[in-house]
Amino acid sequence: MPRYALGIEYDGTDYFGWQRQRQERTLQATLEKALAFVANEPVQVICAGRTDTGVHALGQVVHFDCAATRSERAFVLGTNSRLPDSLALTWARIVSDQFHARYSARLRSYRFRILRRDTRPALEARNALWVREPVELASMITASRHLIGRHDFTSFRTIACQANSPVRQIHRIDIREHGAWIELEFEANAFLHHMIRNIVGSLLMVGHGERVPDWIAQVLNGRDRSKAGPTAPPQGLTFLCARYPSEFGLPPEHSLP
Amino acid sequence: MPRYALGIEYDGTDYFGWQRQRQERTLQATLEKALAFVANEPVQVICAGRTDTGVHALGQVVHFDCAATRSERAFVLGTNSRLPDSLALTWARIVSDQFHARYSARLRSYRFRILRRDTRPALEARNALWVREPVELASMITASRHLIGRHDFTSFRTIACQANSPVRQIHRIDIREHGAWIELEFEANAFLHHMIRNIVGSLLMVGHGERVPDWIAQVLNGRDRSKAGPTAPPQGLTFLCARYPSEFGLPPEHSLP
Repeated sequence: MPRYALGIEYDGTDYFGWQRQRQERTLQATLEKALAFVANEPVQVICAGRTDTGVHALGQVVHFDCAATRSERAFVLGTNSRLPDSLALTWARIVSDQFHARYSARLRSYRFRILRRDTRPALEARNALWVREPVELASMITASRHLIGRHDFTSFRTIACQANSPVRQIHRIDIREHGAWIELEFEANAFLHHMIRNIVGSLLMVGHGERVPDWIAQVLNGRDRSKAGPTAPPQGLTFLCARYPSEFGLPPEHSLP
Repeated sequence: MPRYALGIEYDGTDYFGWQRQRQERTLQATLEKALAFVANEPVQVICAGRTDTGVHALGQVVHFDCAATRSERAFVLGTNSRLPDSLALTWARIVSDQFHARYSARLRSYRFRILRRDTRPALEARNALWVREPVELASMITASRHLIGRHDFTSFRTIACQANSPVRQIHRIDIREHGAWIELEFEANAFLHHMIRNIVGSLLMVGHGERVPDWIAQVLNGRDRSKAGPTAPPQGLTFLCARYPSEFGLPPEHSLP
């Protein structure tokens, strides 16, 4: 049975997160329904990283198996015509049955966007966290360095997190400013549930001057969720990309060198 | 009776345009209802430029009169707490009764965003026009130069346009590219109804190679709407700013030197 990998983009505002639920409109259920129509059989997808309500994606990756043999192009065009405006396939590839969207992924990256101004935004309300208080970027950058590397991130995971291990490896945190915008980009092997939103909530406490940058190291070493800052709201967060070994033949932006 | 000027930002996707209508949800009606609550009396606003369904704004300006004397800050915070997420005040000023949001405006600027890629976008679906065909930027820039200056723009106005004169002066058209994005920025004394969307529709015909750049001059000189290209869809369009003589004391980005 052929296995397909798909690139997925979405505006998560109007969904109850990724994962299928009995009652609510979710991204997984909406996607599976459209794919089932094109494949002409029920399908079940597995994604690289499940996202919460209000979180967006530009480079989410899923895989699924189905007996139908459609061309890659037919899958993209046919499925997109059955999906709402807020959800779209960006590519499709037929892959080996060794490929697994979740377990084969080696790197995941996310972006968190913050808009720093006096009054609340309207045009970008769905895509940014609005903060009114001044933010000191240099302190946030200094604080973020404590998180780079392989650590036990218990302090930054939600109690609901189902991962077996709290250890993750963060490769990169870039924090940039342009005008009123602050953009944080995270790259890791994988993230725990709420990990980025909890890190952003804590880094913002440092940026607002409520904590010194080294406090982040204490929080990390404390391995206690109650020591960290609040969970930042979801709307600033976007799943940027998942990357896989090149042998799977995914599009270049999803392939490791 | 004091006159107030306000800065307004909105995501126009879920509104039937600016102007109050009997049945539909419009920006004007939504804003007037919130202002009436804060002012404790019915208010009627006049804007710098009425926008169509699906068109957004970052720097729309309105004025209105009311007997209530609230501080500028109280008007912004009070009104924003009564407005939906997709609509917000960014500032308020008490102005002289010589100020008129529409008639005092000397310059208006708009941005039109195009996303050039093979598959339709989802995260930016509300904020960009998607085009699948290749776009030759240099041709569009050459074509756009014919439109700079004071001209009769009959060929680019909708039949429904109610302006007395079809003459407008375009000061600037900037066309830039970054990655898959093409951004056009227009500045004029004022625009006719559908003028920018009709210009973008025509420039895209040039960009796609269906017309040569000098065709735009023929269209302009023809003074006949049927000679121009199609009206581009609204969702790429954002009202950026209206600018006024400095004597009115508006925030710097809205004041002429």
